[in-house]
Amino acid sequence: MNKIFLILIAIGFPLSVIGSLLHFPSVLMFGVYCLTIIAIASIMGRATESLTIVAGPRIGGLLNATFGNAVELIISIFALKAGLIGVVLASLTGSVIGNLLLVGGLSFFIGGIKFKRQRFNVFDARHNVGLLTFSIIVAFVIPEIFTQSMNDTKTISLSVGISVIMIILYLAALFFKLVTHRGVYQTKESEENIKEEVPEWSKGKAIIILALATLAVAYTSERLVHTFQAVGEKFGWSELFIGVIIVAIVGNAAEHASAILMAYKDKMDVAVEIAIGSTLQIAMFVAPILVIVSLLFPVSMPLVFSLPEIIAMVTSVFLTIVIVNDGESNWFEGATLLAAYFIMGIGFYLL
Amino acid sequence: MNKIFLILIAIGFPLSVIGSLLHFPSVLMFGVYCLTIIAIASIMGRATESLTIVAGPRIGGLLNATFGNAVELIISIFALKAGLIGVVLASLTGSVIGNLLLVGGLSFFIGGIKFKRQRFNVFDARHNVGLLTFSIIVAFVIPEIFTQSMNDTKTISLSVGISVIMIILYLAALFFKLVTHRGVYQTKESEENIKEEVPEWSKGKAIIILALATLAVAYTSERLVHTFQAVGEKFGWSELFIGVIIVAIVGNAAEHASAILMAYKDKMDVAVEIAIGSTLQIAMFVAPILVIVSLLFPVSMPLVFSLPEIIAMVTSVFLTIVIVNDGESNWFEGATLLAAYFIMGIGFYLL
Amino acid sequence: MNKIFLILIAIGFPLSVIGSLLHFPSVLMFGVYCLTIIAIASIMGRATESLTIVAGPRIGGLLNATFGNAVELIISIFALKAGLIGVVLASLTGSVIGNLLLVGGLSFFIGGIKFKRQRFNVFDARHNVGLLTFSIIVAFVIPEIFTQSMNDTKTISLSVGISVIMIILYLAALFFKLVTHRGVYQTKESEENIKEEVPEWSKGKAIIILALATLAVAYTSERLVHTFQAVGEKFGWSELFIGVIIVAIVGNAAEHASAILMAYKDKMDVAVEIAIGSTLQIAMFVAPILVIVSLLFPVSMPLVFSLPEIIAMVTSVFLTIVIVNDGESNWFEGATLLAAYFIMGIGFYLL
Repeated sequence: MNKIFLILIAIGFPLSVIGSLLHFPSVLMFGVYCLTIIAIASIMGRATESLTIVAGPRIGGLLNATFGNAVELIISIFALKAGLIGVVLASLTGSVIGNLLLVGGLSFFIGGIKFKRQRFNVFDARHNVGLLTFSIIVAFVIPEIFTQSMNDTKTISLSVGISVIMIILYLAALFFKLVTHRGVYQTKESEENIKEEVPEWSKGKAIIILALATLAVAYTSERLVHTFQAVGEKFGWSELFIGVIIVAIVGNAAEHASAILMAYKDKMDVAVEIAIGSTLQIAMFVAPILVIVSLLFPVSMPLVFSLPEIIAMVTSVFLTIVIVNDGESNWFEGATLLAAYFIMGIGFYLL
Repeated sequence: MNKIFLILIAIGFPLSVIGSLLHFPSVLMFGVYCLTIIAIASIMGRATESLTIVAGPRIGGLLNATFGNAVELIISIFALKAGLIGVVLASLTGSVIGNLLLVGGLSFFIGGIKFKRQRFNVFDARHNVGLLTFSIIVAFVIPEIFTQSMNDTKTISLSVGISVIMIILYLAALFFKLVTHRGVYQTKESEENIKEEVPEWSKGKAIIILALATLAVAYTSERLVHTFQAVGEKFGWSELFIGVIIVAIVGNAAEHASAILMAYKDKMDVAVEIAIGSTLQIAMFVAPILVIVSLLFPVSMPLVFSLPEIIAMVTSVFLTIVIVNDGESNWFEGATLLAAYFIMGIGFYLL
Repeated sequence: MNKIFLILIAIGFPLSVIGSLLHFPSVLMFGVYCLTIIAIASIMGRATESLTIVAGPRIGGLLNATFGNAVELIISIFALKAGLIGVVLASLTGSVIGNLLLVGGLSFFIGGIKFKRQRFNVFDARHNVGLLTFSIIVAFVIPEIFTQSMNDTKTISLSVGISVIMIILYLAALFFKLVTHRGVYQTKESEENIKEEVPEWSKGKAIIILALATLAVAYTSERLVHTFQAVGEKFGWSELFIGVIIVAIVGNAAEHASAILMAYKDKMDVAVEIAIGSTLQIAMFVAPILVIVSLLFPVSMPLVFSLPEIIAMVTSVFLTIVIVNDGESNWFEGATLLAAYFIMGIGFYLL
């Protein structure tokens, strides 16, 4: 399996570079880019796993989320520069519902097919659920409603104010997890679980591979974005559908791969940390940074989503809270999350 | 008590048949039908209880929900055929809030007056709460918002797509409960509890009684529906109020009777399974079937409720989640659910 | 510390009386009133603490909420008499979000800086969370949506009907807590915890001090309200911002002081009871009483908030539920609540 992915990269990445220089047909290149990204993502998953064994589930999950979202941040900044605010908001929405419902759902479903009941650290889950509620239900919904009768200047002021508060709270969350309450909510089992294993790669090697893979993913993703218009016309997909569903699936391929791998190995702590932690990083870090960065560009981006986007995110959060809150999962909980994702997918397709 | 109900049926059912043939005054017959249905429902409760002892609380609860909702499904199909889409959506709403708040509330309240603290299987409760969130918060809310700017064709496409996903997930839930995870979340106590008792009727006798009672309830309910217009004019009730409150109370009389009976006997597992399980069957099975069946009729039914209807359902689900999530009940939790039902009742009365 | 507050009262209260009679500048008096109220609130905190030790955490928390909200009830009735319905609804909103997010947040944050993990009675917390959901998510949201297409008469009818149900359920909650289920959900630890301590003041002395302090707070608060217009003009604050944020902070100073004091002493049972119990008293008792009392005045007050107000309350409740539901707190959970409060503060400031 690992060899197949290596071969895919060895063929796919050079082909991506050559194809984009020689302007091969968009729909063909769309397939090449997607496969290449998925293959590179599998390598990133292995590197992250090695780092996870060395660093423990939390920091490992954090590292993974960081490397997964670096790609998105870069692509979004290019899109903002081009004034494509709608596309950026759509891809933020897609990352939130994709990570919670698709990554979370696949992890629970595939892990649950192998194991009857899977447990994960309920303290971490509740910590994350609190932040999900804060970021989506409070920090995204408040500007949605409050700006309905505001002018543009006030809308941007509110967006920037909320963004600053979110970044501060995000940093406070890191300080809480890594400094003041490090290991306070750790269960004994999970600690022992980690000591048993031997990492595939050394710390240094894993970091180098992760860095190179991120660069390669960034390049290929950036190329991929330029095929969307042609692919959309070919398959009859709207810009909203591409932003919310396609960009999010390909852009979060790394999270998908490693979360499912972890779930399959019954390391649900890491799988849940990736699914929810990655969502939190998008909502509390990437989105606010983009709002603030957009002030430098001609058109500023307010933190105001369309009504279908905000409703999709809010209902995803409610479903995740209810599913995750007991610290246990099974295949049916995964199926429920996936069913919700399909419903939203159909909705965005028809919009 | 049981004798009184038998006498009521012995008088009420023939009177219902004769009265409807001879066109007795509607308001009089309204009373006759209601009493007859309640009496038959009590017999259904006893038959279900017998089956429950034989089959265990889960399948017993399932059986009960099925026999209770068969009546609703039949009546709704007749209403759809007549193009009364508003009435069908209203009675679906009424079943959801009626089962959660009225059946659940009465069970908790009456059971709680006899017992200080009543416990029920928290795993089953959370499984059900996850599906409630999926079906009402996701699958009903998404089309509500997404179809605001859609044309009729797309609205029906989205409704049908969601309906298919809901039915598949509903069948998956049965597969999960009865096959892959049968007894996995069962507590020892509840198993022992069941073995102790002796059923009133044999399995065969109970099934025959249940089947006959369902037929009788179906006939009487169908007659009852035709008195609504006259009764509405007499008492000043709007069609919405009749659909949401009156149809739901009478249509769910079987669930009411048996859930309260179970709560009174401290079998809260069954009572909660009836209240929430019945709601889930309405939301995830009856509603989607009706959407799909309506495609055969001149006017198709979209899965789009009015704003008061969806808000009533969504807030009922939130209240139920918060009340049920701890696996315990008492009379005050019942009173809270009932108070919410009265508030919605006043609201629909004044609309 | 206590001496400073006594000196502040000894200077501030006479100065408040003299200043208001001699018409000192409004902005100056605004500062004097605020400091005086905070100082008196600290005395109220001490008196409440003495009563808490004698009466147990629940009744103590109840007493505290009562004395805190008596002030608000009186001020609001004067405002209703003057036809200022918008101000009353805004200050109810402010009390709800202020108690949940600011009082709750400061308690968790300051208590959490001293203690790594603080626990509180999870049964009480869930009881309160159920009532929060009932009162805000159901009883406030239903009229918001249902009255959109109602005329004024029906709107007032619905508001009065809901108010009566809320008051009945509030009294039922007292009956539940103090009579039928007194001590049923009490943990052993908390009982022992209370027996250890000696109250600062005797029961009689504490009650007298509490009564006098309430009178003084009422007088000063009433004076304070009349400086708002001048202060608003001076600092560019809208009426909505003053109603939701300023009135709420000063009007709930007593709760703030004593809740934080309790959290600092690791008596989280009392701190949470004050934060949430006080919110419940506002939502389930003060608000309904005001609706009913307003029938006596020329302009009746419907139980219909503005959209930003209801969204602020609803999202505060969701965040509180998620944070409080595990029966534990830490500084970061406090920071999360405070961050949500700041976001809403900015929102109301810009509206």
